[in-house]
Amino acid sequence: MSELRIKIRKMAIRYGVIGTGALGGFYGGMLAKSGQEVHFLFRSDFEHVHKYGLQVDSVNGDFHLPEVNAYQNTTEMPECEVILVCLKTTGNHLLPEIIRPLLQPKSIIVLLQNGLGLEEDLSGKLPDVAIAGGLAFICSNKVGPGHIQHLDYGKLILGSHNLPEPEVLKQVVSDFQRTGIHAEISPDLLYARWQKLVWNIPFNGMTVVLNTTTDRLMANEHTRELSIELMVEVIHGANACGIPLKESLAQQMIDMTIKMKPYAPSMKLDYDHHRPMEIEYIYSKPIETAREAGFEMHNVSMLEKQLRFIEVQRLAK
Amino acid sequence: MSELRIKIRKMAIRYGVIGTGALGGFYGGMLAKSGQEVHFLFRSDFEHVHKYGLQVDSVNGDFHLPEVNAYQNTTEMPECEVILVCLKTTGNHLLPEIIRPLLQPKSIIVLLQNGLGLEEDLSGKLPDVAIAGGLAFICSNKVGPGHIQHLDYGKLILGSHNLPEPEVLKQVVSDFQRTGIHAEISPDLLYARWQKLVWNIPFNGMTVVLNTTTDRLMANEHTRELSIELMVEVIHGANACGIPLKESLAQQMIDMTIKMKPYAPSMKLDYDHHRPMEIEYIYSKPIETAREAGFEMHNVSMLEKQLRFIEVQRLAK
Repeated sequence: MSELRIKIRKMAIRYGVIGTGALGGFYGGMLAKSGQEVHFLFRSDFEHVHKYGLQVDSVNGDFHLPEVNAYQNTTEMPECEVILVCLKTTGNHLLPEIIRPLLQPKSIIVLLQNGLGLEEDLSGKLPDVAIAGGLAFICSNKVGPGHIQHLDYGKLILGSHNLPEPEVLKQVVSDFQRTGIHAEISPDLLYARWQKLVWNIPFNGMTVVLNTTTDRLMANEHTRELSIELMVEVIHGANACGIPLKESLAQQMIDMTIKMKPYAPSMKLDYDHHRPMEIEYIYSKPIETAREAGFEMHNVSMLEKQLRFIEVQRLAK
Repeated sequence: MSELRIKIRKMAIRYGVIGTGALGGFYGGMLAKSGQEVHFLFRSDFEHVHKYGLQVDSVNGDFHLPEVNAYQNTTEMPECEVILVCLKTTGNHLLPEIIRPLLQPKSIIVLLQNGLGLEEDLSGKLPDVAIAGGLAFICSNKVGPGHIQHLDYGKLILGSHNLPEPEVLKQVVSDFQRTGIHAEISPDLLYARWQKLVWNIPFNGMTVVLNTTTDRLMANEHTRELSIELMVEVIHGANACGIPLKESLAQQMIDMTIKMKPYAPSMKLDYDHHRPMEIEYIYSKPIETAREAGFEMHNVSMLEKQLRFIEVQRLAK
């Protein structure tokens, strides 16, 4: 046992968390609480966290981290082996500039974000950097400065995009597991991304366009049917791209959503709080990717156009 | 000349107007003003019109009818040769009961309403009655009790559904023309109905779902594109039903809509004023009809489901 502990300590990863909100605050906070070295990038919350630390109220137990490695700028941060990107994808054009100061030859970037084509885009701008992706199945919110509320779930799925040494993901998974988080590796990151889109595409957009929550969409026969149709269209889009998702997944996800508490997906929260919506990576990229593979997602495309309209109208107000 | 006048008088039609609102008030008012015998059914405006008459403010000249044949119930009305139905289609299930007291063997019913399948439905309930349909291309509103505002346009297209003597429509057209209204007969009522749906389907639904007006939908590239796609889908639906509408009609209608003043279609006004929306005949029937002909209007169907959801949510409030 003592030998194993020494080995683990020798292999300790230095984590950088880019964007310490609902996601980064929870996952980074859990790693820090378990004794990992974690460096957090903050924006508006920096002063507060510097003074008072980070507070996580979790269904699995609340905790407080009185002293956090907090930064306002990545140029002040040390180089990190694992860079967890927990920002909204609407800021992804800024990622190369933000991340560059943290890079060393062994660094990997893990994009803990929703959507499709994220790793490809970043890889185009940082060609020699090892990139992975991750999907968080979690219900959490930032409820105040440096104050995260974790309401339910928490599972993480990680997958390599172009890692030369994918073994490092195993250690990341193991680090998360040690905190009590259910983490696993997907052998096919694109499969995992498309699978999550099957849920995200109908519910993010429809809750915004129809100004509602998942429970109401499920209680109405018309929107329940429309949700299934949108899901099946995404599944067919994935199939066209060589991702073998099954049609039966749609009904499974509907059944799961019916059982869920009333829920406002992240795009609805973004809309309600006047933040930009992640239309590009959750809608436009999947639509383009399926189109290039020869499949037109007509209804998804209609939802995208409605969201694009709403986005512009809101800015005009 | 005197012989001709006598002939016209002998052939004079007794008109019944069912629903004296924006449409019935204008078209019936124009007929009455020109000297035709017109009997009007009112609901809430009866007392007011009985006392003060009917006021029409029109771009073509305002006029007042101090004495109007006004009724609260069709059982009090005389039998009519031409029964102009100007109600919203949301009350069409009540039509047989409303219309029956007005019927005599030569009566024809003209459904001046939007949508598809109206004549078929009524014919099923009044099997031996002669039915025609009509489409009003008009911008008018009821602005107060017995007070109609006619803002623009006014063209009428009439067509036979099952008239044993279609010539009577010619006299109706001639009666309207004598008032200055541009009226014509379509040799194919279904063609005319589908053609109007090409405009009505995108703009009625989208202004409700996106809470906007036509000018904003046209100013945004995404909703402009979506409008064309919806129009083309309706055209393909019509084509499947044997109606030879051309795809180029979509772009023509877009160009026309771009030139229009900011406009809230009737469904948007109904929604804003908490009245029922005409989803059944403007969406569900065309979708079913095209489906039966082997064509699925996917995007129109999505719009219908969104409207059905909105309809129920509003009732729940």
